[in-house]
Amino acid sequence: MTAYSETVQRLMAELGKLPGIGARTAERLAFHLLKCSEAEAMALADAIRDVKQRVHPCKVCFNLAEGELCTVCADPRRDTSLLCVVEQPKDLLALESTGAYRGVYHVLMGHIAPLEGIEAEDLTLEALARRVKGGGIKEVILATNPTVAGDGTALHIASLLAGTGVKFTRLARGLPAGGQIEYAGRSILADAINERRQM
Amino acid sequence: MTAYSETVQRLMAELGKLPGIGARTAERLAFHLLKCSEAEAMALADAIRDVKQRVHPCKVCFNLAEGELCTVCADPRRDTSLLCVVEQPKDLLALESTGAYRGVYHVLMGHIAPLEGIEAEDLTLEALARRVKGGGIKEVILATNPTVAGDGTALHIASLLAGTGVKFTRLARGLPAGGQIEYAGRSILADAINERRQM
Repeated sequence: MTAYSETVQRLMAELGKLPGIGARTAERLAFHLLKCSEAEAMALADAIRDVKQRVHPCKVCFNLAEGELCTVCADPRRDTSLLCVVEQPKDLLALESTGAYRGVYHVLMGHIAPLEGIEAEDLTLEALARRVKGGGIKEVILATNPTVAGDGTALHIASLLAGTGVKFTRLARGLPAGGQIEYAGRSILADAINERRQM
Repeated sequence: MTAYSETVQRLMAELGKLPGIGARTAERLAFHLLKCSEAEAMALADAIRDVKQRVHPCKVCFNLAEGELCTVCADPRRDTSLLCVVEQPKDLLALESTGAYRGVYHVLMGHIAPLEGIEAEDLTLEALARRVKGGGIKEVILATNPTVAGDGTALHIASLLAGTGVKFTRLARGLPAGGQIEYAGRSILADAINERRQM
């Protein structure tokens, strides 16, 4: 009885380590890579290699960067007195896509979640404290996710940096634009009522 | 406004070319590869590279092989007068796992499906014809899938090699062992009735 050769098995094992990729999907992907042209497979292998070699965290804010600084930190027109703290580079990109923000960022690289084994030490909090205490920052927007872990992380940061004289704000909460009240969950509606604004 | 850097975008594009991987999954996988250790990412890149460099179709039967011949064709104990034609290497492995077959194989590398752009010329039919006409083969088992495309491919092969004096057979059809009649589809039950056997 034969089985897949060691090389094929190793590829399946490596593909199976990717998040959300189970054994059957890994097998399907491996067969695709076996069948496709050499150039196609190598393009993927090279893209992985290049990303690990070229893309590193920005020295200042931990956003993805190809040089020392990310494109936001390298832009002299950004307002460095306004600092927006996000969990991950994806959040930064989402905020940037609005065009509504001209300050700079700090990427935490996750949120505090002891049950998932993510402690405060695993985030870039030390660098954040150094930036805030270094002066020049007037306001820190804690733009963590509106979840238990995100809120907890924001509270941790606010208490960590209490006494620095910096103003802490967080993103507004309420009904999502375009949504419908009848489908909004209880916590969304509670936020919408509690944070109502005069018209 | 920033976006992902060119290197990150290229990785997402390459991941997105994999079957069943959409843009959102490609983004998630790319972020995993950005976050994981260099060694982990390189293990995947190397596994892809190695598979394309080391694994090639068997010279005789087109099964996956690390040398010139696959493990089945290289095994002198196999009965070379009995040839089992399968669509893909996975089918060969499934049949091998039963331990019930001691003949050799021929892997078509697909099935004829003109609507998907897969013509007879895209399969390894020419090599199959050469093997059968070369003599020494007494029986060809057409073990294509019990689907419209699989059945069509089997019929095409049988008519292609008609007159070679070789016996053509196909796998038995009927109720799947362990299945239940009440859940069996109409075509399974029709097969089960039409191919009934005396007890």
